[in-house]
Amino acid sequence: MRIILVGFGVVCQSFARLLLLREVELVKNYGFHPRVVAIVDHGGAIINSKGLDLKKVLSLKAEKGTVAVSPEHGRLGMSPLDVIGSVEAEAVVEATPTNIKDGEPGLSHIKAAFRSGKHVVTTNKGPLALAMPALTELADYNKVCLRFSGTVGAGTPILSLAKKCLLGDRIVSIRGILNGTTNYILTEMDEKRISFQQALENAQKLGCAEADPSMDIDGFDAACKLVIMANWIMNKKVTLKNVSIQGIRNVTVRALEEAAKKHCTIKLIGSIQDGLKVAPTEISRHDPLFVGGVLNAVTFVSEFAGEETIIGRGAGGMETASAILRDLLDIKQSLATRLMA
Amino acid sequence: MRIILVGFGVVCQSFARLLLLREVELVKNYGFHPRVVAIVDHGGAIINSKGLDLKKVLSLKAEKGTVAVSPEHGRLGMSPLDVIGSVEAEAVVEATPTNIKDGEPGLSHIKAAFRSGKHVVTTNKGPLALAMPALTELADYNKVCLRFSGTVGAGTPILSLAKKCLLGDRIVSIRGILNGTTNYILTEMDEKRISFQQALENAQKLGCAEADPSMDIDGFDAACKLVIMANWIMNKKVTLKNVSIQGIRNVTVRALEEAAKKHCTIKLIGSIQDGLKVAPTEISRHDPLFVGGVLNAVTFVSEFAGEETIIGRGAGGMETASAILRDLLDIKQSLATRLMA
Repeated sequence: MRIILVGFGVVCQSFARLLLLREVELVKNYGFHPRVVAIVDHGGAIINSKGLDLKKVLSLKAEKGTVAVSPEHGRLGMSPLDVIGSVEAEAVVEATPTNIKDGEPGLSHIKAAFRSGKHVVTTNKGPLALAMPALTELADYNKVCLRFSGTVGAGTPILSLAKKCLLGDRIVSIRGILNGTTNYILTEMDEKRISFQQALENAQKLGCAEADPSMDIDGFDAACKLVIMANWIMNKKVTLKNVSIQGIRNVTVRALEEAAKKHCTIKLIGSIQDGLKVAPTEISRHDPLFVGGVLNAVTFVSEFAGEETIIGRGAGGMETASAILRDLLDIKQSLATRLMA
Repeated sequence: MRIILVGFGVVCQSFARLLLLREVELVKNYGFHPRVVAIVDHGGAIINSKGLDLKKVLSLKAEKGTVAVSPEHGRLGMSPLDVIGSVEAEAVVEATPTNIKDGEPGLSHIKAAFRSGKHVVTTNKGPLALAMPALTELADYNKVCLRFSGTVGAGTPILSLAKKCLLGDRIVSIRGILNGTTNYILTEMDEKRISFQQALENAQKLGCAEADPSMDIDGFDAACKLVIMANWIMNKKVTLKNVSIQGIRNVTVRALEEAAKKHCTIKLIGSIQDGLKVAPTEISRHDPLFVGGVLNAVTFVSEFAGEETIIGRGAGGMETASAILRDLLDIKQSLATRLMA
């Protein structure tokens, strides 16, 4: 499989490392021969239709900050759209940063990939949160696959648990902690009885909250993930504007103390039942969703198999890279099954 | 797909109900046409090569206690081995009770099914715990599938999470609470500070421990599940005799109090790392495995995707029936993929 990487930050660099580490096993266990034929970053692109030497590319990136300066294969200033449109490949890995205003530049990258008949694996929540129903339709129209495991739970296979492991069942509702930063802040507030502001500053010092923390603490990140789950798992045709969103800025130590009296705590819970909602919610200490720190946790309520909760770290470069690899293997398998149908 | 049900207790009756409930969707969503052509219980068999009327069969069972008395299709006294050998079908669902002394009668049923070219879905831990490496070899030799999702976690897709959702990754260790009864007893002891004996009696009154509770409280049930996970997920060729097993009879309130001082509790943990082990183990209250009541919980440590924990009820007729259905759908899909390979 020939692959184009669009965006070459922590996640795609981890992915390149993962391919180097697991090359032999991927061929042996899955008959999977990945070949990265192009990488685009802010400086331009590096292209080799025979497959790039990933070890060299990683060194180049570390030394020079961009892959486009490669004397042999570099293309200074070449744009992602040009690369996607002109380089022959079966799949595009789209890993540019999330933007929930207009989904760009990811949205255009994904559409361009579909139009040129390429499958897409993305870790970018923006395009999905804003246009998932349209994007899945466009993928179907172009007879290609769109996969995005890494957008929800990073390495924790939250989407696949629901989609693959409950075959023949029906998921009737979902609720969960979908954002590690807010979970960290609320856990700190609950355990140390410190204010939201103080806990946020601690999180920022530790690097588990951004300088501009709005995406996390105002609930947008959780809402994006909720949209993705609603579309993918429950076949709802929704976008970000269908989610009722309330963040954690107004959660007080007082409210946490009141909750504690009832053997509860407060978590930022995303839920899909009648509608889609993100809001601070009281959770019993006996609920499997009662997990602290930066963990994510999601409970699926299924009609016959009961309630299943999955818990894991919702972030990390290598974890997200492992999700990209799963998606590519999944596309390979889907194609085999599709040929049979 | 023509199916023979061997054993017609709570689980297979729930399975029959599930097929009735989901008939239309199974055809529509999965192209799956299940047809139960024979059912065997303690009284004999009921056989109809065109497919049994499951509604009628369920009423008959409820009224008469055995399906073999059916005036049209009943075969009083016909043995499971005769049915498996003589009735044409693609799959056998083996759901007789677990026996860890010699695995019978399940072991013979499974072997007979393989020899006559039938796939097997089983909920019976005995044959797997005693002979899983041999059984998987025999299945391969006969070019049929063996599936057993319901043996670990009932409806909670513990085995599939590991096998299907972590494609391209490698699970390096597993630890978990694999038995709901012991979890209930230890939770009661911890929360109410009552003795093991008292908690066991409570559990028996509530019907969540057997009159002879040895399988659960002496750790054998958890050990069986550990053997199944080690073989299926980690490719270890092991049986019950490779597990070091210690139950919970000697766990004292004193020990639980000591653990509580360290913000821990004691759970019966099954683990696969260097070896296979079931033993009462201290678990931090911050560990995702810290779940109470009858819940099961398993943590998979994977090389790249991080640690994932799955939590769910590990018992229930309909839950286990949903696992049987998943396995049959999985067999259908595997066959499609195999034809492609």
